[in-house]
Amino acid sequence: MSPNRQMALMTQARQAATFDSMLLTHIIHDGEENASSRRAALARVESTLGITDTMKLPHLHTGLDRREQYLEGLRRGRAIVTDMLQHDHTHFINLTERSQLTNATPFGLNFLMFRRTINLQGTTEQKRYWLPLIERMEINGCYAQTELGHGSHVRGMETTATFDSATGEFILNSPTVTATKFWPGGLGLSCSHAVVAARLETGGVDHGVHWFVVQIRNLSDSTPINGVKLGDVGQKMAYNGTCNGYAHFNHLRVPGDSLLAAHARVLPDGTYVRNEVGSQESFAKQSYATMLEVRRVVIHWAAFGLAQPLTVATRFSVVREQGAPMFSSPACPEVSILAYKTQHQRVLTLISQAYAILFASQEFGDRFEEYQQEKREGALGRLSFIHAVSAGLKAWATQTVAAGAEEARKMCGGHGYLVISGLPDMVGTACAAATFEGENYVMWQQTLRYMFKQVGAIQAGRAVDSDMTESLSGYQQWLQVEGENSPPSYLLLDSNHISEPATLLKIFQHHFHRLLSASHSFYTQQTRTSSPAEAWNTSLTRLLPAAHAYLEYLVLQSMQRRVKVIGSAQPSLLPVLSRLTELFALTTINNPGPSFISVPFAEDRLLTADHFLQMRARIDELLATLLPDVIALTDAWDFTDACLCSALGCRDGNVYERLMSWTKQLPVNQQDLAREAWTIEGGIGEFLRGNIRPVAKARL
Amino acid sequence: MSPNRQMALMTQARQAATFDSMLLTHIIHDGEENASSRRAALARVESTLGITDTMKLPHLHTGLDRREQYLEGLRRGRAIVTDMLQHDHTHFINLTERSQLTNATPFGLNFLMFRRTINLQGTTEQKRYWLPLIERMEINGCYAQTELGHGSHVRGMETTATFDSATGEFILNSPTVTATKFWPGGLGLSCSHAVVAARLETGGVDHGVHWFVVQIRNLSDSTPINGVKLGDVGQKMAYNGTCNGYAHFNHLRVPGDSLLAAHARVLPDGTYVRNEVGSQESFAKQSYATMLEVRRVVIHWAAFGLAQPLTVATRFSVVREQGAPMFSSPACPEVSILAYKTQHQRVLTLISQAYAILFASQEFGDRFEEYQQEKREGALGRLSFIHAVSAGLKAWATQTVAAGAEEARKMCGGHGYLVISGLPDMVGTACAAATFEGENYVMWQQTLRYMFKQVGAIQAGRAVDSDMTESLSGYQQWLQVEGENSPPSYLLLDSNHISEPATLLKIFQHHFHRLLSASHSFYTQQTRTSSPAEAWNTSLTRLLPAAHAYLEYLVLQSMQRRVKVIGSAQPSLLPVLSRLTELFALTTINNPGPSFISVPFAEDRLLTADHFLQMRARIDELLATLLPDVIALTDAWDFTDACLCSALGCRDGNVYERLMSWTKQLPVNQQDLAREAWTIEGGIGEFLRGNIRPVAKARL
Repeated sequence: MSPNRQMALMTQARQAATFDSMLLTHIIHDGEENASSRRAALARVESTLGITDTMKLPHLHTGLDRREQYLEGLRRGRAIVTDMLQHDHTHFINLTERSQLTNATPFGLNFLMFRRTINLQGTTEQKRYWLPLIERMEINGCYAQTELGHGSHVRGMETTATFDSATGEFILNSPTVTATKFWPGGLGLSCSHAVVAARLETGGVDHGVHWFVVQIRNLSDSTPINGVKLGDVGQKMAYNGTCNGYAHFNHLRVPGDSLLAAHARVLPDGTYVRNEVGSQESFAKQSYATMLEVRRVVIHWAAFGLAQPLTVATRFSVVREQGAPMFSSPACPEVSILAYKTQHQRVLTLISQAYAILFASQEFGDRFEEYQQEKREGALGRLSFIHAVSAGLKAWATQTVAAGAEEARKMCGGHGYLVISGLPDMVGTACAAATFEGENYVMWQQTLRYMFKQVGAIQAGRAVDSDMTESLSGYQQWLQVEGENSPPSYLLLDSNHISEPATLLKIFQHHFHRLLSASHSFYTQQTRTSSPAEAWNTSLTRLLPAAHAYLEYLVLQSMQRRVKVIGSAQPSLLPVLSRLTELFALTTINNPGPSFISVPFAEDRLLTADHFLQMRARIDELLATLLPDVIALTDAWDFTDACLCSALGCRDGNVYERLMSWTKQLPVNQQDLAREAWTIEGGIGEFLRGNIRPVAKARL
Repeated sequence: MSPNRQMALMTQARQAATFDSMLLTHIIHDGEENASSRRAALARVESTLGITDTMKLPHLHTGLDRREQYLEGLRRGRAIVTDMLQHDHTHFINLTERSQLTNATPFGLNFLMFRRTINLQGTTEQKRYWLPLIERMEINGCYAQTELGHGSHVRGMETTATFDSATGEFILNSPTVTATKFWPGGLGLSCSHAVVAARLETGGVDHGVHWFVVQIRNLSDSTPINGVKLGDVGQKMAYNGTCNGYAHFNHLRVPGDSLLAAHARVLPDGTYVRNEVGSQESFAKQSYATMLEVRRVVIHWAAFGLAQPLTVATRFSVVREQGAPMFSSPACPEVSILAYKTQHQRVLTLISQAYAILFASQEFGDRFEEYQQEKREGALGRLSFIHAVSAGLKAWATQTVAAGAEEARKMCGGHGYLVISGLPDMVGTACAAATFEGENYVMWQQTLRYMFKQVGAIQAGRAVDSDMTESLSGYQQWLQVEGENSPPSYLLLDSNHISEPATLLKIFQHHFHRLLSASHSFYTQQTRTSSPAEAWNTSLTRLLPAAHAYLEYLVLQSMQRRVKVIGSAQPSLLPVLSRLTELFALTTINNPGPSFISVPFAEDRLLTADHFLQMRARIDELLATLLPDVIALTDAWDFTDACLCSALGCRDGNVYERLMSWTKQLPVNQQDLAREAWTIEGGIGEFLRGNIRPVAKARL
């Protein structure tokens, strides 16, 4: 195809880059070798699936009904698992070929959560039995925790597993409607097995929630096991390639070794035994270990979840020419919408956020690996920190992604509202993460609770956790001067270097310290007249901004660190990534995030009106300098056209011809639906012929 | 059905109200008589449609494909128009039975835009011919303006209408792919006629965009007229009950009187004649008159568009019991999620926004009526003000609704992600308005441009427009002191009365004045070295916050005024509405809106740290006082269960039984899809049996 105007604009924008986007691809995809092996795997899978012709309307956009959506998900899920099995890799273990979380396919949770739970909660013997079955994918398992009436709050779950000492079995039961397992991915139609969270009862005593591995479907004829009713929860905003399901247990008897018994077991006489000595809290934490590990995967995904709609929006912004700036002469030709300063700012601010999430996720991944290593060596000291940060980072990242994906969609104007733009599905995918794997408002509280423990340590003259030393350095100094009217001298900012990395980090840290101190004081005051629970809840709206501020600080710190390391290894990437980091910091200060849990930096009164002016001027400079790199910065994520599945976002920029071509291929335009609509009984034709009285004319 | 726990909680919450919600219903629906006649009409329509059984899965949620969605939209559209014709009312002229904008049905634009355009652009003779056909609904028309390559920017449109003096006809043509009319509601399948925006060309001269009324489909056999290709643009995030369409004209000849000729005509010899003397700008404004009027309808809709998901989220928040506050004893029973202070604040903040939009829309409606009256009398003096406010209010309201609807959805946790929650469709509906009928970033600019003209008048010593006198009072005083470090004495706030209506309004006005003055100075400075167009675009990110601040001021002012009037007529409503107004003001200050176009109040440095503390304490008080009224405040909008179409939001609160019942009725759960998935070739059964090699085990 000879390049049309849009394609020429795209080529030009791509050639403007100041760096080699492939070098950044290697950073994003964990090294050159991994990036290229991932690319090869994707190419095989896309070829198997027959989805590489970008002028052909993607099957996903042909108006599939629930059944067809699911069957297509099955086909794709099978293709990626098969490729992993045949070519011995794990590229699609966490993210699918469309860069969605792998629970988007009917097979994803087998590895992501089913295997993980057995690995974490099972005895050596149980692992020896189950793990090979899972790894060879002879069975397909899911993770059945949430119930119709119970989400994040595990303690409230109703499903029971009652030990029958006569037979040595457990009896799984859903005693109420609200006890129905509801939402687990793969549960409805696709899984043969599930790990089920249920209250363990022996001899009339409730020992709290434990995990059971349960067969739910007969492998021979695919029917549900007697005593289990299974079904699909129906259509969702996205993730429709899998079957989130429900399961109702009617006194289902399962063998005694169904209880995953690494941490607790039941003796034949019904005696309940904890295998380790520990508090109820640490026991409970162990049973959430799967969620903790999966949260890390969610954080990793989040960067891709934002980069994907941004890739579409950035490409569209380059080729969409629309209007001319206010006061232009009538002869002024239409300009690319990226030329509008607001669009330009929105695009780059969100790009900086996608990279911020990526780098924060990579840094957190390193901390997590260290923790895992220590854990294997028997040291659990960092669990609280890891737990608190995983919760907060999950909340911060998924909230940023949900808002950013929808903003990216809006940046494409009306066309972003079309399903074939691919954006509605990306927005739907992005939005899910804010409420699953821990509702974000619950997550913020987990982070804050940990921060308060650190404040408690400081107040008691004890050391804070080693992971918090740097974040909380200077906190005591701040406590001593916080009542004063103007910022203390050690916080005075050098106006000539307001945008230096260290200064920016200091501004973020001060913001965090001020809000932490304010929220802790407020809470403490409340506890004088209320119980801790009442005080906590009464103060909630004042507390969460401190958690939010900590996360912003942590993310900036991670991004600065990571960019420094990358820059030493690959100096050609240093300028663009440093600018992006600075832009992230400055726009975070100047365009505060979602309102309910953040407090503007301006309230700190550390920054003067002049500082704000300077920062906005610096933002303008950065935007101008980064403009030539917008395409390279989005190309770098290496999304294929088939992955984006977007008429607006293909690499070649050929937006209008593709949009029109896909539209004409839609089944609705092949069916002569108009004839049906006009000629059926009660149709348009009959309707127009039958109308003779005016609609309340005077009031129209 | 005997009330279960959820239903009992709902009844209790409803009975807690401090006022009679029906009185508020009368305010929302323009008086008691209108409210009750609307209710009766809805009851008839819902009975005709057979959608009143709330335990039956709504047809809309049965997983309809594109064809079925459209046919259902047709059925519903026909039902409401028939009811209007038979019972001589206009309840569904602007909003459908589901409280969506009427362009959600295939017939809505016939009245909303097709008739309106002919009325505004047609000659007396043209109106005499066309209007009766429209009012009797013998034809169904749409409004064909946007093109594949051209949205808000009318000037860039490519469709041509070339006058052929040999025959006296116009030749309509789409010269390129991007000239294809794309998006018009009803165009694809449902309309017989369209008003088409096209560049009028006579004798090789381009006279700019004019309107033509064109038959596009044969009434006899429903086929497209020769020379027109028609189709549907496919599935969208919402509005799938209608056919947004495309039309490609291939030298279609239409009669000479197709040109709507109220403002310009073409003589038989091809001479082009403007009927009135006026600038090109005022001529262009006239051709956008339909959009101006429709914008008023969009603003009116916006309040309902937010109230609807909020009704669902509020009801769900009352009956959903989940977890217990942090630090509660393990014995603490689960609490309603509305008991969490953050949820409580989110619910009531958004409710205050819905009422703010409602009252602002009613106030604006009154101004608009005055303007219409003056226009009929030949006075167009207020057009600029009306245009600027309609643009800004549309942007502010639709942005508030889009963000608020998604927030309401998130407040329902995972269940809000289900299509049967009704929320995804509401969010999709809400999001559309931010980009249609004028993209919001374009709208903000229209408002600001008008504000700059007012500033220009002040600087030149002239009077501002009479509609702006009050808003800009004190602006000059501010200009004189704005360089000073502390706020001027006339702005000193009495800390004891920080939350008085007049004080709050003053804070908003000062915020507006400060940003207006800052943005105007910045822009003026840029014009010293750049052209006005360059200066405007360079400054854009600094300019728009001033427009945003004006709208916030205007909305608060409208709400305060309206509540005062309502309160005198109906004193029992005064306390609750006054609290809501105060809450709106305080949360707007403390939880700033979307970041790209707003600047925190804290940057004004008018409010001290103490003020912020006081305000947050006052918000806490208001939240507590308003809590008993949450159900009444949402009931008042009078949405029927069928209108909400939500398993989570029915009036009775019976959430879980309904959710489970609807889920079981889904076709996917009637089909034995699992058997198909397991037994087909390439299905799950074959897949699991065939897998023998482990997935890269070591790396799992």
